[in-house]
Amino acid sequence: MNPIVIIGNGISSVAAAEAFRKHDKDTPIVIFGDEPYYAYYRIRLSGLIGDTPNLDKLYIRKPEWYRDLNIKVNLNQKVISIDPDNNEITLENGNTFYFSKLLIASGSSPFVPPIQGKELAGVFSIRSMDDVITFNDFISDKTQGAVIGGGLLGLEIAWSLAKKGKKVHVIEGAPHILFKQLDETAAEILTDLGKKANINFIVQEQLNKISGKEKVTDIQLGNGETIPVEFVVFATGVRSNIDFVKNTPIQSARGIVVDEYMQTSVKDIYAAGDVAEYKGQVYGIWPVAQEQGKTAGLNMAGQKISYSEVVPSNYLKVFDVEIYSIGDLCKGDKSCATIKSHDNNVYRVVFFKENIPVGAILFGDVKPAIKISKAIKAKTKISDKIIKSQDFKGFLNECSGN
Amino acid sequence: MNPIVIIGNGISSVAAAEAFRKHDKDTPIVIFGDEPYYAYYRIRLSGLIGDTPNLDKLYIRKPEWYRDLNIKVNLNQKVISIDPDNNEITLENGNTFYFSKLLIASGSSPFVPPIQGKELAGVFSIRSMDDVITFNDFISDKTQGAVIGGGLLGLEIAWSLAKKGKKVHVIEGAPHILFKQLDETAAEILTDLGKKANINFIVQEQLNKISGKEKVTDIQLGNGETIPVEFVVFATGVRSNIDFVKNTPIQSARGIVVDEYMQTSVKDIYAAGDVAEYKGQVYGIWPVAQEQGKTAGLNMAGQKISYSEVVPSNYLKVFDVEIYSIGDLCKGDKSCATIKSHDNNVYRVVFFKENIPVGAILFGDVKPAIKISKAIKAKTKISDKIIKSQDFKGFLNECSGN
Repeated sequence: MNPIVIIGNGISSVAAAEAFRKHDKDTPIVIFGDEPYYAYYRIRLSGLIGDTPNLDKLYIRKPEWYRDLNIKVNLNQKVISIDPDNNEITLENGNTFYFSKLLIASGSSPFVPPIQGKELAGVFSIRSMDDVITFNDFISDKTQGAVIGGGLLGLEIAWSLAKKGKKVHVIEGAPHILFKQLDETAAEILTDLGKKANINFIVQEQLNKISGKEKVTDIQLGNGETIPVEFVVFATGVRSNIDFVKNTPIQSARGIVVDEYMQTSVKDIYAAGDVAEYKGQVYGIWPVAQEQGKTAGLNMAGQKISYSEVVPSNYLKVFDVEIYSIGDLCKGDKSCATIKSHDNNVYRVVFFKENIPVGAILFGDVKPAIKISKAIKAKTKISDKIIKSQDFKGFLNECSGN
Repeated sequence: MNPIVIIGNGISSVAAAEAFRKHDKDTPIVIFGDEPYYAYYRIRLSGLIGDTPNLDKLYIRKPEWYRDLNIKVNLNQKVISIDPDNNEITLENGNTFYFSKLLIASGSSPFVPPIQGKELAGVFSIRSMDDVITFNDFISDKTQGAVIGGGLLGLEIAWSLAKKGKKVHVIEGAPHILFKQLDETAAEILTDLGKKANINFIVQEQLNKISGKEKVTDIQLGNGETIPVEFVVFATGVRSNIDFVKNTPIQSARGIVVDEYMQTSVKDIYAAGDVAEYKGQVYGIWPVAQEQGKTAGLNMAGQKISYSEVVPSNYLKVFDVEIYSIGDLCKGDKSCATIKSHDNNVYRVVFFKENIPVGAILFGDVKPAIKISKAIKAKTKISDKIIKSQDFKGFLNECSGN
């Protein structure tokens, strides 16, 4: 019997293998990963900047786990093509491999905009363990750098650098940092905290050019400003790794198009995680990748189970403050009602559409996260009285059904 | 008003511009082509091997035609990315360009399998005018070469080379040449004619390796045979040029997925020709590209007109014999009835499913091509009597409704 093959060894790969094995003890599972490591907590990478990574603590599952579950992991082996007609994949080393079913969980890669100077030494993007190791090595004797992109990853990187005593400039094109995860108020508080950590934020501004002879020496912004830097990190989003489905019957757009069973347009070929596009969306976040991987694994094992849509949420800890952001923040939609609660550096806001909570920001106090996320998913109706009186505590009570 | 933009200048581009202009006299049309020539009859390229191309005779439309219809043609300008959110394309030179509607008619490129030695000097594939010019230059003093692929293009190339006195070996993996267009009988006659033209056919055989120091000196086949050659031409199929839709909302699989109006998954963005996939098929043939281009142009001009499916057909003249092949040749489907008529080197066969003609091969006599293609498209029912008596003439009569 040909094995099921999984391309990629991130969280969706692990979740898929685990779910598959629960229902199918016999079919061999073979994972191909292009990194030299077992699946690790990629989301923790930015926290390792300036430190020596401890692999044991980063692995999602220990090597024994794979062995015990009869999962063969091929590290350092990059898949370069898929032949859906013959159920075959080809590796970079030329070897080919048959599969009975295939999961594409090849993740995503950093997107670096086509900016002059991006090929200079000292320009980085951080996606893998090896990226961090290379980056750490480079910055060890440097004092000042720029992070391009004030999103989740950009801020985490900036914070790690600041903690190591580096002067950091964060360049963000949107009107404020964490534009997808925060509203203006929360972003303002966060910006103030970041400034205290010696981070310089430049928002609503473009990077025009990176200059230097071989090595980076400075960056030029759209407003003409020049900032001397010794390194630049791009944190400007990711793109699904879909090269190997090009010109095959496997449909893709932003990512590989999947149905509610995580099946692609080709029978027996599935996709999950950062590489998958579900209902027009590539989420690129951990909990979605995990749930999609699990769903793919179950369906590959013959269970007919639909993907239970995860309301996209992000948890973040930077500048010593915890932030949780979930769902629809009604950006540009003024018809939403809100309940806001703001007390010093604790700021909480919930967004409502027709009395149903659709999104929330918890800033400085993430305790109600689970309660609120459940209410959003359950579409729990909240009374007019609570919303009108801006009663955050009352809102939490109604979330619990009280 | 932003213009409509067409990427590519092949037959579907011309057909689209023409159809659009019939219904919209005002909106500017801008074509970007990555070759230095106006749209030309690409299908005639293989006939130019060994000769000096006469551009005037090859152009589908003269330069004045574009000027008269207010169609701006930008030659030598390669589009490298599409931004569907902002209706903008980016050229290789960095310039950007807005469109109101976009037609992607970027065609296809030769597919060359990953065979050792394919990067050696003397290895070619032929897709563009410049390919032919380069190839002609190289082979002028050579005497022996191999054509990899015994399909339409491969045979045309082999024939052109043979006419110039070159010794040619055609290597084909399938059981016979023109496997998609002919049955065994027709292929046999054709092979005999080719042999007389000094062409050596090796079928059901793989190319393993191309050898040489810098320049090609010989090829090795799967059966261990080594053949000394001075040049190798790959005619092993094409792949849709879809690089610029990668990671965009524009869906693709083998090609860019289009609906019956040739619209992609994104409003106002259309695709046609070799780059388009309709109902899971990328045909890659001239009449389909022309009809799809026309359909796209009409719909871009606001006409709501469905693509009238072209029954795929091929006309070919090699080894001094004319061949026409159309539709479904019932390969591997033994339930089909046939009418065969074979007289020396004239061989005609029609394939029927439930008395309806679905495909045909006309070998050495292509006169009935139009009549038969109409009957296939109209699904004209043919009487049992005619089929049982193998009455080809009677069949043609019934096609005409007699």
